[in-house]
Amino acid sequence: MPRPQQQAFSTCPLSTCPGHQGRPLAAVQSSQEAFRTEYDTFGELKVPSDKYYGAQTVRSTMNFKIGGVSERMPVQVIRAFGILKRAAAEVNQDYGLDPKIAKAIVQAASEVAEGKLNDHFPLVVWQTGSGTQTNMNVNEVISNRAIEIMGGTLGSKKPVHPNDHVNKSQSSNDTFPTAMHIAAAQEVNEVLLPGLKKLQNALEGKSKEFSQIIKIGRTHTQDAVPLTLGQEFSGYVQQIKYGVARIESTLPRVYQLAAGGTAVGTGLNTRIGFAEKVAAKVAELTGLPFVTAPNKFEALAAHDALVELSGAMNTVACSLMKIANDIRFLGSGPRSGLGELILPENEPGSSIMPGKVNPTQCEAVTMVAAQVMGNHVAVTVGGSNGHFELNVFKPMMIKNVLNSARLLGDVCVSFTDNCVVGIQANTDRINKLMNESLMLVTALNPHIGYDKAAKIAKTAHKEGTTLKEAALKLGFLTSDQFDQWVKPKDMLGPQ
Amino acid sequence: MPRPQQQAFSTCPLSTCPGHQGRPLAAVQSSQEAFRTEYDTFGELKVPSDKYYGAQTVRSTMNFKIGGVSERMPVQVIRAFGILKRAAAEVNQDYGLDPKIAKAIVQAASEVAEGKLNDHFPLVVWQTGSGTQTNMNVNEVISNRAIEIMGGTLGSKKPVHPNDHVNKSQSSNDTFPTAMHIAAAQEVNEVLLPGLKKLQNALEGKSKEFSQIIKIGRTHTQDAVPLTLGQEFSGYVQQIKYGVARIESTLPRVYQLAAGGTAVGTGLNTRIGFAEKVAAKVAELTGLPFVTAPNKFEALAAHDALVELSGAMNTVACSLMKIANDIRFLGSGPRSGLGELILPENEPGSSIMPGKVNPTQCEAVTMVAAQVMGNHVAVTVGGSNGHFELNVFKPMMIKNVLNSARLLGDVCVSFTDNCVVGIQANTDRINKLMNESLMLVTALNPHIGYDKAAKIAKTAHKEGTTLKEAALKLGFLTSDQFDQWVKPKDMLGPQ
Amino acid sequence: MPRPQQQAFSTCPLSTCPGHQGRPLAAVQSSQEAFRTEYDTFGELKVPSDKYYGAQTVRSTMNFKIGGVSERMPVQVIRAFGILKRAAAEVNQDYGLDPKIAKAIVQAASEVAEGKLNDHFPLVVWQTGSGTQTNMNVNEVISNRAIEIMGGTLGSKKPVHPNDHVNKSQSSNDTFPTAMHIAAAQEVNEVLLPGLKKLQNALEGKSKEFSQIIKIGRTHTQDAVPLTLGQEFSGYVQQIKYGVARIESTLPRVYQLAAGGTAVGTGLNTRIGFAEKVAAKVAELTGLPFVTAPNKFEALAAHDALVELSGAMNTVACSLMKIANDIRFLGSGPRSGLGELILPENEPGSSIMPGKVNPTQCEAVTMVAAQVMGNHVAVTVGGSNGHFELNVFKPMMIKNVLNSARLLGDVCVSFTDNCVVGIQANTDRINKLMNESLMLVTALNPHIGYDKAAKIAKTAHKEGTTLKEAALKLGFLTSDQFDQWVKPKDMLGPQ
Amino acid sequence: MPRPQQQAFSTCPLSTCPGHQGRPLAAVQSSQEAFRTEYDTFGELKVPSDKYYGAQTVRSTMNFKIGGVSERMPVQVIRAFGILKRAAAEVNQDYGLDPKIAKAIVQAASEVAEGKLNDHFPLVVWQTGSGTQTNMNVNEVISNRAIEIMGGTLGSKKPVHPNDHVNKSQSSNDTFPTAMHIAAAQEVNEVLLPGLKKLQNALEGKSKEFSQIIKIGRTHTQDAVPLTLGQEFSGYVQQIKYGVARIESTLPRVYQLAAGGTAVGTGLNTRIGFAEKVAAKVAELTGLPFVTAPNKFEALAAHDALVELSGAMNTVACSLMKIANDIRFLGSGPRSGLGELILPENEPGSSIMPGKVNPTQCEAVTMVAAQVMGNHVAVTVGGSNGHFELNVFKPMMIKNVLNSARLLGDVCVSFTDNCVVGIQANTDRINKLMNESLMLVTALNPHIGYDKAAKIAKTAHKEGTTLKEAALKLGFLTSDQFDQWVKPKDMLGPQ
Repeated sequence: MPRPQQQAFSTCPLSTCPGHQGRPLAAVQSSQEAFRTEYDTFGELKVPSDKYYGAQTVRSTMNFKIGGVSERMPVQVIRAFGILKRAAAEVNQDYGLDPKIAKAIVQAASEVAEGKLNDHFPLVVWQTGSGTQTNMNVNEVISNRAIEIMGGTLGSKKPVHPNDHVNKSQSSNDTFPTAMHIAAAQEVNEVLLPGLKKLQNALEGKSKEFSQIIKIGRTHTQDAVPLTLGQEFSGYVQQIKYGVARIESTLPRVYQLAAGGTAVGTGLNTRIGFAEKVAAKVAELTGLPFVTAPNKFEALAAHDALVELSGAMNTVACSLMKIANDIRFLGSGPRSGLGELILPENEPGSSIMPGKVNPTQCEAVTMVAAQVMGNHVAVTVGGSNGHFELNVFKPMMIKNVLNSARLLGDVCVSFTDNCVVGIQANTDRINKLMNESLMLVTALNPHIGYDKAAKIAKTAHKEGTTLKEAALKLGFLTSDQFDQWVKPKDMLGPQ
Repeated sequence: MPRPQQQAFSTCPLSTCPGHQGRPLAAVQSSQEAFRTEYDTFGELKVPSDKYYGAQTVRSTMNFKIGGVSERMPVQVIRAFGILKRAAAEVNQDYGLDPKIAKAIVQAASEVAEGKLNDHFPLVVWQTGSGTQTNMNVNEVISNRAIEIMGGTLGSKKPVHPNDHVNKSQSSNDTFPTAMHIAAAQEVNEVLLPGLKKLQNALEGKSKEFSQIIKIGRTHTQDAVPLTLGQEFSGYVQQIKYGVARIESTLPRVYQLAAGGTAVGTGLNTRIGFAEKVAAKVAELTGLPFVTAPNKFEALAAHDALVELSGAMNTVACSLMKIANDIRFLGSGPRSGLGELILPENEPGSSIMPGKVNPTQCEAVTMVAAQVMGNHVAVTVGGSNGHFELNVFKPMMIKNVLNSARLLGDVCVSFTDNCVVGIQANTDRINKLMNESLMLVTALNPHIGYDKAAKIAKTAHKEGTTLKEAALKLGFLTSDQFDQWVKPKDMLGPQ
Repeated sequence: MPRPQQQAFSTCPLSTCPGHQGRPLAAVQSSQEAFRTEYDTFGELKVPSDKYYGAQTVRSTMNFKIGGVSERMPVQVIRAFGILKRAAAEVNQDYGLDPKIAKAIVQAASEVAEGKLNDHFPLVVWQTGSGTQTNMNVNEVISNRAIEIMGGTLGSKKPVHPNDHVNKSQSSNDTFPTAMHIAAAQEVNEVLLPGLKKLQNALEGKSKEFSQIIKIGRTHTQDAVPLTLGQEFSGYVQQIKYGVARIESTLPRVYQLAAGGTAVGTGLNTRIGFAEKVAAKVAELTGLPFVTAPNKFEALAAHDALVELSGAMNTVACSLMKIANDIRFLGSGPRSGLGELILPENEPGSSIMPGKVNPTQCEAVTMVAAQVMGNHVAVTVGGSNGHFELNVFKPMMIKNVLNSARLLGDVCVSFTDNCVVGIQANTDRINKLMNESLMLVTALNPHIGYDKAAKIAKTAHKEGTTLKEAALKLGFLTSDQFDQWVKPKDMLGPQ
Repeated sequence: MPRPQQQAFSTCPLSTCPGHQGRPLAAVQSSQEAFRTEYDTFGELKVPSDKYYGAQTVRSTMNFKIGGVSERMPVQVIRAFGILKRAAAEVNQDYGLDPKIAKAIVQAASEVAEGKLNDHFPLVVWQTGSGTQTNMNVNEVISNRAIEIMGGTLGSKKPVHPNDHVNKSQSSNDTFPTAMHIAAAQEVNEVLLPGLKKLQNALEGKSKEFSQIIKIGRTHTQDAVPLTLGQEFSGYVQQIKYGVARIESTLPRVYQLAAGGTAVGTGLNTRIGFAEKVAAKVAELTGLPFVTAPNKFEALAAHDALVELSGAMNTVACSLMKIANDIRFLGSGPRSGLGELILPENEPGSSIMPGKVNPTQCEAVTMVAAQVMGNHVAVTVGGSNGHFELNVFKPMMIKNVLNSARLLGDVCVSFTDNCVVGIQANTDRINKLMNESLMLVTALNPHIGYDKAAKIAKTAHKEGTTLKEAALKLGFLTSDQFDQWVKPKDMLGPQ
């Protein structure tokens, strides 16, 4: 059975899209195959007549058939570009750009920022490493949409030229990193941090709820001395709380924008004050404290700020991996596991084992954690390989950063709603395990010394007896002393 | 400007989709919101009436709102499942499954394999780590489509039950890894290896074309002794050739299928011979030499074969990073770089610097290489964290493996077509650099010794003269001797 | 309390070294500070009179004060250089090198190969990326030792010159990668593969020993259907067996030697046949099937073969992580864990909890696995960043490859001897868990269907009863049917 | 030629160690093979009579023969333990420990902190993942040394018991992470940050020195618009400056100490106030602002703070990789490279190519960068795999963190001293390249538009003429206009 041809661009991946539902796209599209002719400095090209993009965008789709639809430039970058282009147009008007042109650009850019024109951005991540082609895609779409608004002819570049007007005082080399920072900061603030905080709150609630449940601790996966289930969860709370702090501590450098650096960081062809004004406009439009980068050379040639942010997300991934692993092991069972936690049952767990329920939310969390660790290496490799005045791993870097932020944020919400808030303590099981434990012997150290205490534990283990029976048999202390000294409740803190 | 709500599932990412073009999906969808009721062991759920999937699929979309459309289970996995389900149905018929039911399943599964039902697989990668929900998605779609074929009622589970018939003799735990291996093997054979071989051929052609062009070598990025440009390219050929060998050497273990292991590897609820027959059917359907895995416990609990394949792709990524870096540096310029190669000009290079042409294909290659290195770490972390009878990082692992294979294969084709075949040698520049080089002095070692040769080179460097001038000035040899001993043509191999 | 000055070179890290024991080295050394003067092309330098190395080595110690003693070039590389230099001298004699000089070089090189002169190699890994300084260190030591053997004056470079004689027909650029491959191949054959095979054998023994013990399986860390403990261990056996195959499949390319390529791969200043003869000599001296690399340009400019080997070790690390995790969780307890395995008690486990015994060997294994994964990324980054005719991450790459091979090999031996061979099955516990399990219900699927079986399991879980009680209560089958259909022994394979 | 037996523990790796110099250690040691008998809870063992360590240390050397001498626990951890044990003894005295015992412990611990007893710590990193054996090694050494001070018998555990006195109020589980944080904070403050700041200062000096040198910029490795060499270096300055900030932003969490948490974080067997007092003592002894960790459960079970620190070092590694790559490419040549920088010549560069000088310091930097990226993955994998109340990848994690800090700090110093401060601008070459450049055309955009400017550049490129010649030929502007508009000096910033 021969495999059908590659799927890129051939079917719509969206099941809820009403346009074609199972029919091959080619058939559906035949009705609309009308084109106009546009040109760039390399020559003429046919552009679909219902699209705002122009020749350079089409050229990129021809030169970079890599990965297909799922590898498109993240829509967050496109929207960030919309914000930036609007800001630049407003500032350019201050510096003399024809207000009519500026107004049309602002309207078109706003539509891009609002996601209304997403269909007009077909380019994949795997293009030029500066993202120039996506910058031009944005310039072309805004230019043509603005031309349309002003009553002109699509593709005429008049009265709104993609380079001379939309890209005025800009270069791909400063706009793309600016869009990267805007997109990353927004995704962090709108998805990642809210997700983390939601999870932190839920874990805090559980920590309080479980504050009186004394359970056996486990170190090296082996039985250890007791703690409360609330204390155990308080460690998770601390991890997520610090995770928020870690992410936030990287943001000051993410809020620095390259705009105004133009081609190599000098700001050639821009105006004094442009950089500061654009950053201020972007801050106003987004509600985030963006400022102009103090050194534009660094801002174009390196993306250390994104490597740093990715590193913080990598740390968060470690925290989540640990917490999710704990919860699934503590909830393992129902009869052959540790069984201390009862996790919510959300779906049938097995296609063959009836009645099986699995810690599926924990699995989504740990898979996301692994992905974020991998993304971080991709970002690191890209971040380290810039040359001279430009790092050319830009699209790859921002794709991975946005992916990590989105997945972490989303999975925190899913994990919270579908697992954490519904976790119950299996107190019968917890009590049983705690009372049978040998490690309560540790409470005897200050009274009879480590060596004698060890003998008691080893004797009880070998003979299958309780600690007290072993202790009395060995004659190291009296029954009353044992009862007085070995109290789990008294083992939960310093004295 | 508030950012619009999250885009997942809210807009179609496909620009060529004719269904809505910029309109919000919600509006478009309102007309079609018809549902039927299906149930699973957890209860009833509403299912869109135009979809073949059932309750468990819907439940997963509710429980795992993570990442949105771009994070869907790769279509290659869905198609591989179609192949597997068809093979299983045919074998189950041999073991007694009602031929009418088997035939309907075979037809429905074939449609899945051919990609005709892609719209019916809405689940994301970030679900249960066993991929159970995708296996059930497949079972539900095939069951309902088969019911439809047989004239039954969608959602009735009669006469074709998703578990009892479509999943017969199977478990998610053996089917998902089987689909992983089928999908990976196909992507490797259909995209990755053809891409690598195409690139290898193109590089071989260039190596031959450039076999007579003597140029200066560079070690430590510094001038060294000469070689031919053909020899330089022959190193690249060797890297890619070995890359093919590396990928191929991992395939024997990828061709081993878990099918027949069912829930934990024992093969419970399956029949003796089922495993072997299914593997043979899959081999027949795909034309690839699949066999049944000799140890099903390993095949479910670990995915070392995919870690191994990913490792081979990681090595290929290193090769490509090296080659693409070389080519862009050798082609750097036009006036301030090394300038030995002239790369094809494919598109305008800059939105601000007119006439600039950039090595964009090399940039796509190096970005892909970085991504593959990152994907490999994600695969490694997932592969190392299986527990007991099941590794539950399956969807994440196969997503990354397929992504690496696809991107590497595609970028090899793009790089070949849009860059490598069009590379020209800038022979004027090459000759000029070679003739000025000081490292030709190395040819004198066997005649006058290392120390004297070093003095000649240092003198020429300091005084800005030629080697010959320095040699004669220092009196270490005669003019005739110099001419006889320092011949670049004689420095290209052992004597 | 101010911290003492940096420890590099200031104290001997070897506790068993009798020379100073706690005294600062400076004091001890004062008595022996005798020097001779040597020179290189940069000028004169003082060399300790009791050392064979010369000016270039001393110069490197001055220029690269990075990391201290623990960062020295691995001794395996030094010994491999000894083998190579001996082989080269013997071949050079065939091509006309004075037999007296050749003989002295052979003797001196053999001493290096045997590790007798390890004290004369003070250079760290963090030097020039070609390893030139270590090649010169070797050349200097062999030259001076050979001079000594022939009765000459140390440092005179007569009658044995480090470059003209010891390095004859060689360059750092081909000798260092040759030494890398020799060292890697030896470490793999002498440490890694024997370690893996030893572990494989021990696991196979356990798999057979446990072949009749039926236990509950666990998927998603949750109770699943039964398998034998022997089957569970057979998965581990398969992983390690394939690990051996994976390592071995990379060796053909590791056995290819760069020697004969000299400076850029052309073989300039060497003789036709030299490369092949040197490889044959090295093969003879090591007993390993070394051959000359078919393409020397690739062999100098890239180290894909080591990235590939590292990738195979990365896969082995994943396998070991999985196995060690399983064993420590299956051995968790003694009273609050899974408790199916009894692990050997090797040492006191806690400085505060008396009688605690921990799975420390598993911990060493998993720490090594993490290190190998990290080493692999370092190797990958280095391997991808070669430029033109030379990769200059050579010392870093081989350090990590050797570290991974050594740690993996050693930890396999330690794990086998101190853990695996002593593992006992806790059959009482295993039987108890198996008999209580709800997942035996899976055996009913073919008889009563998935949905009814699920109801039985859920009822038993909710009501805390046995499966049989729930089944009879629900009236889905008779007592006799239950006993006939639900037999763990019959659930261990297909029927 | 059979390879000699493994080198671990068999030879001293320190060339400057006067004790044996080339002789096999076994011979040297034979004279001192005297032993005493010590015991732990597992039984008796022979201990070398000249060593302070005891039975548990010896037992670890027997059970963990992994990696040899070079894999020993970093001496920084040992010294940090000395500081901690001294602090604990002083606080324990406040809580009632016999002042004579406390005083002896303080003295012995101080000797450990000062590095005087380094020979008594033979254990490797690859031991129990809690570092318990190293904690006991420290307890044993301090106990025996204190016994010696007090006139007792080594090994008698009287009057100073390793557990009951030296380890009083402590557990491995809180002491080892405390030592990890002390060691990491010290290495960062004493090696890493000073190294980074030194490099920052040197780069700042160069940036100022080169502030008037106008050169061609390069983006995509291709010619771009001009900037000053000082501006180019200012980007490097910014990267390192931010690197310092990144490292420092992680320290607040590294300054939090686990001491007082004892076995599982509850503080069992310690006293109220102990944790705070110990942290204050450690702060006093080190001069660093250590505080007690607000949540001890997190501090034992996770090491996110070290993952975070490692992530910051990973970002610094990216910065250094970029800078060192730039400098070696800008310094490439001497005749066939970019040749804009003249790098200091520090050593002979080639064993075969006389007179060759290589950017060896850059190579050390980039190799270290790759290592740090690899170390970071190892730390990440370890950090993500903690279970329940304890992360058991502690020794591996701190080894990698310390290694990264040390290598980065050292290589910054080496790079600064041996390369950066000696960099000279090759102004002739810089001027030549700048004046020939085609990208100066960018200055014409605001005057004649992007499309016409592109035509000028393409014409000049194709015809090999200057921009001005092409511009005049095309008739787009006058000679005067060209001279007025195309001034490199005016292209260095916004207007």
